[in-house]
Amino acid sequence: MAEKKKKRILTGDRPTGKLHLGHYVGSLQNRVRLQKEYDTFLIIADVQALTTNFETPEKLSRDVRQVATDYLAVGIDPEVTTIFVQSMVPEIAELTVFYSMIVTVNQLRHNPTIKSEAAQYGYNDMTYGFLGYPVSQAADITFCKANLVPVGEDQLPHIEQTRRIVRKFNNLYAPVFPEPEALVSDIPRLVGLDGKSKMSKSLDNAIYLSDSEEEVNRKVQKAVTDPARIRKTDPGHPEVCTVFEYHKAFNSDEVNEIEEKCRAGKIGCVACKKRLAEVLNNLLEPMRERRVKYEQNPDIVDEILMAGTKKVREIGKKTLEEVREAMHLNYFK
Amino acid sequence: MAEKKKKRILTGDRPTGKLHLGHYVGSLQNRVRLQKEYDTFLIIADVQALTTNFETPEKLSRDVRQVATDYLAVGIDPEVTTIFVQSMVPEIAELTVFYSMIVTVNQLRHNPTIKSEAAQYGYNDMTYGFLGYPVSQAADITFCKANLVPVGEDQLPHIEQTRRIVRKFNNLYAPVFPEPEALVSDIPRLVGLDGKSKMSKSLDNAIYLSDSEEEVNRKVQKAVTDPARIRKTDPGHPEVCTVFEYHKAFNSDEVNEIEEKCRAGKIGCVACKKRLAEVLNNLLEPMRERRVKYEQNPDIVDEILMAGTKKVREIGKKTLEEVREAMHLNYFK
Ligand code: SF4
Ligand code: SF4
Repeated sequence: MAEKKKKRILTGDRPTGKLHLGHYVGSLQNRVRLQKEYDTFLIIADVQALTTNFETPEKLSRDVRQVATDYLAVGIDPEVTTIFVQSMVPEIAELTVFYSMIVTVNQLRHNPTIKSEAAQYGYNDMTYGFLGYPVSQAADITFCKANLVPVGEDQLPHIEQTRRIVRKFNNLYAPVFPEPEALVSDIPRLVGLDGKSKMSKSLDNAIYLSDSEEEVNRKVQKAVTDPARIRKTDPGHPEVCTVFEYHKAFNSDEVNEIEEKCRAGKIGCVACKKRLAEVLNNLLEPMRERRVKYEQNPDIVDEILMAGTKKVREIGKKTLEEVREAMHLNYFK
Repeated sequence: MAEKKKKRILTGDRPTGKLHLGHYVGSLQNRVRLQKEYDTFLIIADVQALTTNFETPEKLSRDVRQVATDYLAVGIDPEVTTIFVQSMVPEIAELTVFYSMIVTVNQLRHNPTIKSEAAQYGYNDMTYGFLGYPVSQAADITFCKANLVPVGEDQLPHIEQTRRIVRKFNNLYAPVFPEPEALVSDIPRLVGLDGKSKMSKSLDNAIYLSDSEEEVNRKVQKAVTDPARIRKTDPGHPEVCTVFEYHKAFNSDEVNEIEEKCRAGKIGCVACKKRLAEVLNNLLEPMRERRVKYEQNPDIVDEILMAGTKKVREIGKKTLEEVREAMHLNYFK
């Protein structure tokens, strides 16, 4: 009996620094689970990162390896998941250029994510590449004919744009591409340890997957709790406590008990934080163990990235042959 | 003594049909001359043609070979000039994507040629690729490090955009590219035989380089002359006569004599047209002779295009290596 072909997933990250627990909760743990069920492709989107980092590209090289190492540490298995680097796949650039002929500027301008990201990054003057981010994303998703893209609700307009491009291409030329579907999951947002929603290195409010036990302890210790609580016996308000948010995200076994004790003034914040640090360190410990190997032999990471990139280039070349055939651009076949 | 390296020229056409005498006067005769002095690269810009023809790509394949055959017939020498097809050079797409990160949408929107072309083609809703035409043109010019681009005055804003991109790239990353210069020539506009400025197949007002002697005779015969002239002895007004425009463009030896005779009522329009047809056929005859070889052996045209494309891909790969090095995207070198 023929084995049923696994559906293909395309997902990934811009290489903009070390990955933290927010990434773990938001996507990484999901990917580790999905890779067993699906043919997973992980793109390190360095060209897209250029849209916001074009002035400091030397950072990219470090960040690309950092992200790859984080993936491997977290449990992404390079035997089943294909990790690759966007800028090393010219077929993505070629598709981007072809798609740019069948997408209007208005469609891009109305894309809510473009609107809000432009606001977030404070561009007075958006770059042409930034405006075309949904086009480039469509190329990422389709060059390998991905069937599924794990996204949060807010990313749906991007996927819809990709589906629109695929439909238009398939109608105009030939049915080359499957219409990718969004694999919508409720992507929990993890607040920073200071209660601020945006985690960043400069705010020192994020726990990185590569943090040591000591760093985790130190950061949890200075996390923001219920400000109204002075003494251990004061009844606490977990709903306003950042530490409690983290218990909810990482300590589901004990979260009910902690809530009860906090409200009843039966647990002190110091002990509560200590417990959280333990839980987080238990989560991170196997990642640290896996990481050792890759940090001691960074060549292994490079080899994995090169092997993944080589594999997707083969796939990309095949897709582009079909695209040229469909567009009647295969002049000298 | 080392031979001084020739400067490189990049020029070309969108493959949108057979080339006519307007192209000859406007650019082809200039290129035939320039190829002796410069290292000339001729791009058949099929991807750019997609911006306006994306719905009928099957036309492209025919038009690409047509343009190449016209080039060869007109006297472009494939031994010294490199003719290539844009869509077969992925390095151009890659550069387009990189450049799109350092060009703002506003810069493109203010490009006067984009403005006027958008008006001309009547887009209510410009495509993303069309808006990016100057970016793609910058990639065409720079992937082979061209030094010179022959243009008319109206194309200067495009070259200025390319120069701006080159300066920005060189400043941000490393001085990879020479700043290309416009080789401005006064590009004469040839009116259609009906006196309309736009030549087109449907108006039957253009003489194609591939027209037979009979077609030339027929078309010249029905050309528009001075409408006030009824009899041969009526004094004519060459300044309003299309046939006279063609004498000016193609018959400089006799143009003064014809003007005199026309004003004096000493030459009839029939004879004047006959003379023009002769002059044009004399011009076209050597092209017809060269064309025979290529039309009888279309494989030669394909081979020339493939050889040219292969050559520029080697050049493009080398340039892209330098670009990746400069942008710090050469991770695994
Ligand atoms: S006991 Fe725990 S949940 Fe309650 S306020 Fe303190 S840190 Fe927060
Ligand atoms: S004689 Fe020649 S130039 Fe004069 S109006 Fe006739 S066609 Fe034109």
